[in-house]
Amino acid sequence: MGDSISLVLFSGTDDKLNAAGAAAMGRKVHVFLQYWALDAFRSDRILKDHGVAPEAGPEGAAAFQRHGGQHWSEILRQAKDIGDVEIQACSLSMDMFGLGVADLDPLVDGQEGVAAFFLHAGGPVTFI
Amino acid sequence: MGDSISLVLFSGTDDKLNAAGAAAMGRKVHVFLQYWALDAFRSDRILKDHGVAPEAGPEGAAAFQRHGGQHWSEILRQAKDIGDVEIQACSLSMDMFGLGVADLDPLVDGQEGVAAFFLHAGGPVTFI
Amino acid sequence: MGDSISLVLFSGTDDKLNAAGAAAMGRKVHVFLQYWALDAFRSDRILKDHGVAPEAGPEGAAAFQRHGGQHWSEILRQAKDIGDVEIQACSLSMDMFGLGVADLDPLVDGQEGVAAFFLHAGGPVTFI
Repeated sequence: MGDSISLVLFSGTDDKLNAAGAAAMGRKVHVFLQYWALDAFRSDRILKDHGVAPEAGPEGAAAFQRHGGQHWSEILRQAKDIGDVEIQACSLSMDMFGLGVADLDPLVDGQEGVAAFFLHAGGPVTFI
Repeated sequence: MGDSISLVLFSGTDDKLNAAGAAAMGRKVHVFLQYWALDAFRSDRILKDHGVAPEAGPEGAAAFQRHGGQHWSEILRQAKDIGDVEIQACSLSMDMFGLGVADLDPLVDGQEGVAAFFLHAGGPVTFI
Repeated sequence: MGDSISLVLFSGTDDKLNAAGAAAMGRKVHVFLQYWALDAFRSDRILKDHGVAPEAGPEGAAAFQRHGGQHWSEILRQAKDIGDVEIQACSLSMDMFGLGVADLDPLVDGQEGVAAFFLHAGGPVTFI
């Protein structure tokens, strides 16, 4: 795996997905999309407002909106352009939402099972 | 430590605990239960509905319920049967809830302090 | 990096920050403050009540308050005294909140960009 890292994206709020995009930038990364993060990658929803963590409160949410900056999907697109970033959807979560790969944004390279992901990851993973 | 990984379970919602069960399957894992995750392992509550992350929204929560599948406690039981999975409760969290090991599901092997857990973990941990 | 670990603190609730403090104690750690965790380190707010994760529910929140114990800022201060703990604020999050380093508690050593943090981190990071 060399210096590859493994990211499990679980949360689907825009603040967490921003942090995930930043963590993937310029690195060799294997990303696995589960639950609410997977839902956020649906091609018909990816640019929607996915909210922020509830702890942000109204003041934090307003600061987040005001700040703007690149959308996390654009950050991930750049990370894929310049680096070795692979994004896989969790098969079980796909099944839960009744989704096929065609329902997802082209950022997603395919789907795989949890066992395959963790076998590939080998060591520790970062769970976001 | 070989290829052992260390998981800190902090959250006690059923979606996160499902993800944790999947992460433990078939691997050599040392699990540490803190705060709301510990509370979810109480023997009188482990099979209760622990909800899902608030970001799921009503649509997500309904998809989660509908999907069913194995309960995370069953996944962890299988992970223990087939692999080298050790589950320890955080002593400080036990104290916070006023719990003894006898109050916890037999999945939990014992309790230990934070310092002992992190000493054992050595390298990076996955925090869920 | 030797046995140094890298922690990204994203959440700003007191339960998560307690867990982060425990993870930093007695280790060589590089901490990076993003979003709501950064907001919690403002010198005029650090000792305020930052709440707990919503899943705690009223019963959990009450147990957390009742338990007391050291504030996470005090745990981190001790971790810095006895170990090699460096705490950096994320430049992008600083910008989002309109903060300068002078607005932050002296626990924070400075600010850096995401790229610098992850370059320094090298391997896997723990995201809390």
